[in-house]
Amino acid sequence: MYDLIIVGGGPAGMTAAIYAARYKLNVILISESLGGAIVNSHKVENWPGIKSISGMELMQNFEEHVKNFNVEILEQNVVDIKKDKKEFTVLTSKNKNIHGRSIILASGTQKRKSGIKNEDKFFRKGISYCYTCDAPMYKDKTVAVIGGGNSACIAALLLTKYCPKVYMIPRSKLRGDNHNIGLVRKNKKIEIIEDKLIDEINGKNSVEEIILSDGRKLKIQGLFVEIGSVPSTALAKELKVKLDEKEYVIVDDQMKTNIDGVFAAGDITNGKLKQIITAAAQGAIAANSVFNYLRN
Amino acid sequence: MYDLIIVGGGPAGMTAAIYAARYKLNVILISESLGGAIVNSHKVENWPGIKSISGMELMQNFEEHVKNFNVEILEQNVVDIKKDKKEFTVLTSKNKNIHGRSIILASGTQKRKSGIKNEDKFFRKGISYCYTCDAPMYKDKTVAVIGGGNSACIAALLLTKYCPKVYMIPRSKLRGDNHNIGLVRKNKKIEIIEDKLIDEINGKNSVEEIILSDGRKLKIQGLFVEIGSVPSTALAKELKVKLDEKEYVIVDDQMKTNIDGVFAAGDITNGKLKQIITAAAQGAIAANSVFNYLRN
Repeated sequence: MYDLIIVGGGPAGMTAAIYAARYKLNVILISESLGGAIVNSHKVENWPGIKSISGMELMQNFEEHVKNFNVEILEQNVVDIKKDKKEFTVLTSKNKNIHGRSIILASGTQKRKSGIKNEDKFFRKGISYCYTCDAPMYKDKTVAVIGGGNSACIAALLLTKYCPKVYMIPRSKLRGDNHNIGLVRKNKKIEIIEDKLIDEINGKNSVEEIILSDGRKLKIQGLFVEIGSVPSTALAKELKVKLDEKEYVIVDDQMKTNIDGVFAAGDITNGKLKQIITAAAQGAIAANSVFNYLRN
Repeated sequence: MYDLIIVGGGPAGMTAAIYAARYKLNVILISESLGGAIVNSHKVENWPGIKSISGMELMQNFEEHVKNFNVEILEQNVVDIKKDKKEFTVLTSKNKNIHGRSIILASGTQKRKSGIKNEDKFFRKGISYCYTCDAPMYKDKTVAVIGGGNSACIAALLLTKYCPKVYMIPRSKLRGDNHNIGLVRKNKKIEIIEDKLIDEINGKNSVEEIILSDGRKLKIQGLFVEIGSVPSTALAKELKVKLDEKEYVIVDDQMKTNIDGVFAAGDITNGKLKQIITAAAQGAIAANSVFNYLRN
């Protein structure tokens, strides 16, 4: 029986683990792969104290920190959680049952799909949801980025380092930080096509062409979908945790949900500014709240 | 005229500066000395991604990060702030007037005094409020620590590396993390005296003796006061910012105060868990809120 089961191994889950270990809680962290969505970030320049680092490397630092406290880590998926009185039972993808007295949900978000015709057909055949992972595969090719936020801007900027031509299709307008938008607009390899949707993706064995809503056809070999994320809240629903209208977990300022013993932290919550630093802080607060919850 | 004036240069103020610079705001950070209270921390082991670092070194990393964005830094004290319509005027200790459209108050807290008879008389003559700064000066001496929280525990532990005997006088009971309390109780150089107050501090030119409430006299050469902090809210009062019953600035989840254009972040706020990671996250959120405030 653990004091605390943390579901998710991104900045929120790992910081919760560090704090829980320092509170001398008997804690297990369950996550199929450590690091969370941020490992797909090519460059992180807003983690205070580090001018520039890859998301992968930053999360490796977190991981070493967690392991330094001898926190138990189970690299499996959680497929179900049940609550019975004051005890939780977590079932993993490898059919393991884990019992605990409290839960921190920190399973983050997953990339949003575009819903464009043929999107699934060309997945991994020209369509990518991870520019950090896949950009080098498109060397000397023409590509397009769907989306207008910071991730889309950064994706386009990175792709210009490999590709002679990058179309940026924000659907409406660019919406990222002024800093990022400025860099995109200045970059001569990027052609921004605002206020147009993509109607169709075509090709034989892989992506060859997209058709815009004005009928214009663009020859491309790669399409990067960067239009945000949806929270991974299947387990929260299982526990009858209250979600907001966008399906994010509703937490109070101490990261408590409406269910006794269930806390949440990081991108999965309804916190407005979704950053590594805010996720990590929420993880620390959630661990502190668990500590107080178990004492009472 | 600056977009944003940040008052305070600890983790909250510096993270706010980093984020504000990334939002392309014209920002100035005013602080008599960068780093904040955490520079007095001998050892930080809960900043995610770094197993162990001194508070001073961690804040130097923050400082380099801020300077990397060419944020203007003014190393002066702020003595007054006035609001006139939508414009703020900040007066510094060197009689400089700074004008801005928004304010982030991030001036943190100051060490609390014990109120014991002769405390002021022996300040810097055996009485210290900064164990990191002063511990090495007490090599081979007998010292006492007043306080029972984490800072007091860590102070006592550090002092055992210099001193043969450390009295720990928490007034009531030890209240820190179990981890810290465990280390204190195991340490044979530390004698814990619970449920006793100190009535008097005596000595000729410097501290020689303390008298406890049960009449017991302890011969010591140094007394470290580690009983918490009080928020530096004189400027907040000037601006008619609402404070809670302990005089911390009341902020909402976006770090807004009750006064338009005035935000706050870090230890100065009524946030419950006061940590570097939570202060930094509040700084990021405050900068984001300023960005939104100025756009509207």
